[in-house]
Amino acid sequence: MLGKLICRSRLAAGVRAFSTGSRFYSNKLAPLDASRLQINKTSTPKHKLANDQLVFGKTFTDHMLEIEWDAQSGWGVPKISPYHNLSLDPSCAVFHYAFELFEGMKAYKDANGNVRTFRGDKNMERMNKSAERIALPTFDGEELIKLIDKLVLLDKDFVPEGAGYSLYLRPTMIGTQASLGVGIPSKALLYVIASPVGPYYPTGFKPVSLEATDYAVRAWPGGVGNRKLGANYAPCIKPQLEAASRGYHQNLWLFGEEGNVTEVGTMNAFFIFKDLITGKKELVTAPLDGTILEGVTRDSILELARTRLPAEEWEVSERYCTIHEIIEKATKGALVEAFGAGTAAVVSPIGNIGYQGKDIAIPLARGNSGEYTAKFADWIREIQYGEEEFQGWSRVCQ
Amino acid sequence: MLGKLICRSRLAAGVRAFSTGSRFYSNKLAPLDASRLQINKTSTPKHKLANDQLVFGKTFTDHMLEIEWDAQSGWGVPKISPYHNLSLDPSCAVFHYAFELFEGMKAYKDANGNVRTFRGDKNMERMNKSAERIALPTFDGEELIKLIDKLVLLDKDFVPEGAGYSLYLRPTMIGTQASLGVGIPSKALLYVIASPVGPYYPTGFKPVSLEATDYAVRAWPGGVGNRKLGANYAPCIKPQLEAASRGYHQNLWLFGEEGNVTEVGTMNAFFIFKDLITGKKELVTAPLDGTILEGVTRDSILELARTRLPAEEWEVSERYCTIHEIIEKATKGALVEAFGAGTAAVVSPIGNIGYQGKDIAIPLARGNSGEYTAKFADWIREIQYGEEEFQGWSRVCQ
Repeated sequence: MLGKLICRSRLAAGVRAFSTGSRFYSNKLAPLDASRLQINKTSTPKHKLANDQLVFGKTFTDHMLEIEWDAQSGWGVPKISPYHNLSLDPSCAVFHYAFELFEGMKAYKDANGNVRTFRGDKNMERMNKSAERIALPTFDGEELIKLIDKLVLLDKDFVPEGAGYSLYLRPTMIGTQASLGVGIPSKALLYVIASPVGPYYPTGFKPVSLEATDYAVRAWPGGVGNRKLGANYAPCIKPQLEAASRGYHQNLWLFGEEGNVTEVGTMNAFFIFKDLITGKKELVTAPLDGTILEGVTRDSILELARTRLPAEEWEVSERYCTIHEIIEKATKGALVEAFGAGTAAVVSPIGNIGYQGKDIAIPLARGNSGEYTAKFADWIREIQYGEEEFQGWSRVCQ
Repeated sequence: MLGKLICRSRLAAGVRAFSTGSRFYSNKLAPLDASRLQINKTSTPKHKLANDQLVFGKTFTDHMLEIEWDAQSGWGVPKISPYHNLSLDPSCAVFHYAFELFEGMKAYKDANGNVRTFRGDKNMERMNKSAERIALPTFDGEELIKLIDKLVLLDKDFVPEGAGYSLYLRPTMIGTQASLGVGIPSKALLYVIASPVGPYYPTGFKPVSLEATDYAVRAWPGGVGNRKLGANYAPCIKPQLEAASRGYHQNLWLFGEEGNVTEVGTMNAFFIFKDLITGKKELVTAPLDGTILEGVTRDSILELARTRLPAEEWEVSERYCTIHEIIEKATKGALVEAFGAGTAAVVSPIGNIGYQGKDIAIPLARGNSGEYTAKFADWIREIQYGEEEFQGWSRVCQ
């Protein structure tokens, strides 16, 4: 075990470089500035795959965006260059202490041939919160959006056409300081790569089967489960394998003695209940209490539900429900449907939940999903592809 | 957010490749085999730094060890080659989902000029537990020890001489699969780098000042705090900065409503109490309940205490003590001393603990440390440098 103790004088010097505000670093450092962009185009363009050959996150476009940062000078010159390997010292902080965070976004081709992104401002906001949580540098999100636009437009021919097809964008930030000392990274790299992807379920919605998981815990109060850090992902693979060994696709993460439902796999979880007397329905998802990822799809569903579903028939609740409430409501016919929500699958219908050796069937009114699950998926798709305008969520890249 | 759901058929195929035992992968894959080692020596040896110029983890020896693994063929040919950057696809799992783990070991030069390592078998055991927890490949620890020996002997001239000087060894494993899908890495790289280091406190022991931390949580039941994963480190930097802003060196991690003391910074925590009536002393450290790192230094101190301290005068306890017990015992004179324990600092005396705005002074009978803190440090140093033989803990590299 590394018992690294930083001496008081060194810490004090380190601390002086930080401000107490949301922007972690001194204003004297160069800000992220999209106008400094340098572009080096590829001379060997890649072959574009047909839509039916696309595999999520396996192939990438011709170019990538990179911006280096260091504690002395701040953000460097943004560079778009041919997609290439990163060359990093084996002592870099990212390899040892998980100084890494990412975002997931998508770019869509609309009916006019324009390329659009969906609520990128929310991703930038969250990316800065992730960076601040692990002492990586923050940045002006609008500047990164401008740079991402340039990357997307340069690689526009890679954006697949057709409903459900998109260019998955992966903004990533890693600590690149070459030192084994555990401390604030003095160097970082922000980069964006892009992968053409197909619809998550080419044959339409497929309901997933979940194992309610209480032997492993994804996130904890005072931890980092609400931030999009690499640290939250590797620990969840083994529980997923355990669930798979019993025939389930994914984990339904429970928390605490009460059995609060927090997330599903790497998505936010939604449940729809109905009052058997009044018929009034309730859309429920876990509150942002510090253990729940602030999903952009989660936020979009809540906003669409609040503006488009009739208030007299619906209650929209950010509250915990327990596995016991779900079982009880399913048993008496008060569970209407359930789904996961995230960027990759948008909404993913839940068909079954296993808990303590018993399976709870979730109603699927439309065969492969519930009625409202399908409705939310349609609403979001229409906005993402520019068929419908809603609160400026979809932006044409320029 | 990435809502990656692996389809049932793909999962089933993945699951078949796994066994249920401690060795995760099928026996048909090539095992890690030290006899296959290939060595490519540097033609440009580095300048060796004088002892007083050594900074922890900043400079490295001439060579590094690498072994690639993939799910189809298992462990590849071990290679020792000149220290070099890693060249990795920007979509590699290590950059996005924290598929990474490490160990910390040291090699010491003894009075006869031999180079020795300390309890490397414990590090190998722990490294395999870490790998198993995040679905990275496990390996035969004895084979890696043999390979580390070869690296250390090749770079023997970098092992600094003198008490407190050593060659810090950093075995590391990363997931190198080039894909954004969240899943079991199908490729990995195990590598070892080595950094000549000086004594943690060149001027002798210096007591550290800790802030008892309950607003952030290092580890939790059902999480991965007992494994040496990168994921456990980046989240702890911000709390350390917060403690530093109030004048403390490090965090004393508390857990739960009771305020159980778990660890200090990145070390295990030890307290010595005495019974004011009988005079009997108690050495206390947190139990290995799944949230505590299984420190090699922790284990060594417990074993030395149990074999060398008179049983009629000492109790050795793996139990939780709360911050309230520490305050109460400090107040009435029943707190003898306290220290952190880890590979880098070996033992690190604690001089002060801040809790809820008040400071608790910890006795330092010998000025900069307590009597037993110094005794444990001496005992371990004597074994590490081969001055004293104890249970085969120190091994001459061959």
